[in-house]
Amino acid sequence: MKKYISIGEMSKINNISIQALRHYDKIGLLKPSYIDENSKYRYYAIDQIPYVDVIKSLKYMGLSLEEIRSIVLESESLEELLIKLEEQKNLIDKKIKELKNIKSALSYKIHNIKEGITRKDFGSVYVKRMEERKYVYIPLENGKNDLTNDDSVILALRNVGLILEKENIIEGCIGVTSVIEENKIIYEDIFILIEEISSIYNHKNIKVIPSGEYLCVLYRGVETNSENYYKKLLKFIEENNYKVDDKYYEISLISGIATVNPDDYIVEIQILIT
Amino acid sequence: MKKYISIGEMSKINNISIQALRHYDKIGLLKPSYIDENSKYRYYAIDQIPYVDVIKSLKYMGLSLEEIRSIVLESESLEELLIKLEEQKNLIDKKIKELKNIKSALSYKIHNIKEGITRKDFGSVYVKRMEERKYVYIPLENGKNDLTNDDSVILALRNVGLILEKENIIEGCIGVTSVIEENKIIYEDIFILIEEISSIYNHKNIKVIPSGEYLCVLYRGVETNSENYYKKLLKFIEENNYKVDDKYYEISLISGIATVNPDDYIVEIQILIT
Repeated sequence: MKKYISIGEMSKINNISIQALRHYDKIGLLKPSYIDENSKYRYYAIDQIPYVDVIKSLKYMGLSLEEIRSIVLESESLEELLIKLEEQKNLIDKKIKELKNIKSALSYKIHNIKEGITRKDFGSVYVKRMEERKYVYIPLENGKNDLTNDDSVILALRNVGLILEKENIIEGCIGVTSVIEENKIIYEDIFILIEEISSIYNHKNIKVIPSGEYLCVLYRGVETNSENYYKKLLKFIEENNYKVDDKYYEISLISGIATVNPDDYIVEIQILIT
Repeated sequence: MKKYISIGEMSKINNISIQALRHYDKIGLLKPSYIDENSKYRYYAIDQIPYVDVIKSLKYMGLSLEEIRSIVLESESLEELLIKLEEQKNLIDKKIKELKNIKSALSYKIHNIKEGITRKDFGSVYVKRMEERKYVYIPLENGKNDLTNDDSVILALRNVGLILEKENIIEGCIGVTSVIEENKIIYEDIFILIEEISSIYNHKNIKVIPSGEYLCVLYRGVETNSENYYKKLLKFIEENNYKVDDKYYEISLISGIATVNPDDYIVEIQILIT
């Protein structure tokens, strides 16, 4: 004689909720094989247990109950199952890639905030070796001075952000390039460093910061504070007879992406030693 | 004079829905800075645009709107943000690991189903080199013959499945071990191969299948069909003077986990050449 088990036993044996079993019954995925005429209680046959494994296993792999239903209930199902599993594998690959992107963005921001919080050496000049970096930029009108209070600059920066967002790029630090002409700081481009290799490398608004040794100085706050630090840098260059490039990079370690409080911003001015 | 933009412009500039902006307003995350007294229209200041970037960026990293709200609205927020981001990174690491597990389970099943679908050499004996494998098993009462129609076997198999599920192990193929005594197949253990290194390796019900060269024969269907294939294997061993171990492994390539149709099952009988 065939053994039957109650829905409670079926639930316990399979480590699955009674609610889920009821749902599977309702959608026709797994119907109890015997219903008591008097009590209307539903019973499962022991050999229905492996069906729950199939369902669980396919659910674990991300298939919908509807997909599982069509696979489990249709007889010519192996080839079909194979196609569904391959599709599922591709989806999971995509999801893993996406999470890795998020992780790299997180690591990047964690690193920058940590550095920003711990650094106290504002105003002293140091030498730092850096690898080649790339950025997406928007040119600024010549001679901008107060970037944070300028609406067109905020809009320009937003446009860079949208390009990166569209290309699914993890944005790095925000920065500006500048030159000094007649003792005045002239901002040229506003940019966002890009971390990920991608199709965006064909974008026309890409520039390269060469690898090499850089003279650097750190300041806190918005770039209206920067003038004194440029002066320190220039003095250091002159006193130590350094030969440097003419383009300055001001790159934020902590910027609007990590905090909305501009007093927390930490920015490094960098210039290539030639 | 400060420039203001409408909610529609704010939405367009930031590539974010008007609905989302309304929601941010409602929960106090980002309030329009100016409301026209007559029309009651809401306007954002240009310098509110970067706030949307902060929100988007933190949302992308998996933080809830409530968490973002507390970070954005509290002034001493950098350290707090750092903790939240670290937590988020750990969560993402866990999720990536989980997806990799699912991917490996998928690849494994895809591989087996593909092999199962394409193999046609049922009944011919071949030699196959195999690496060491491990399995979790439940001992069977001696002499079981018709495993698929035996309730206690189904329950035993389910117990193995639950152990693996509890340990978050990707289960491999299902199998049984057997010996031949007085021309009768005696089934000893029912087991599931385990693919992943894990704490379960300390479990008491673990056995090892040694690496080496195996004589193999393939059959289709449930193990009640197996007797003829054992005979072919025995005949081959005798005719070719092979020396073999006394334990047979019957391992399913396609089993209940991939299909609920037992006629589709594909099983390989393996015995170690000594």
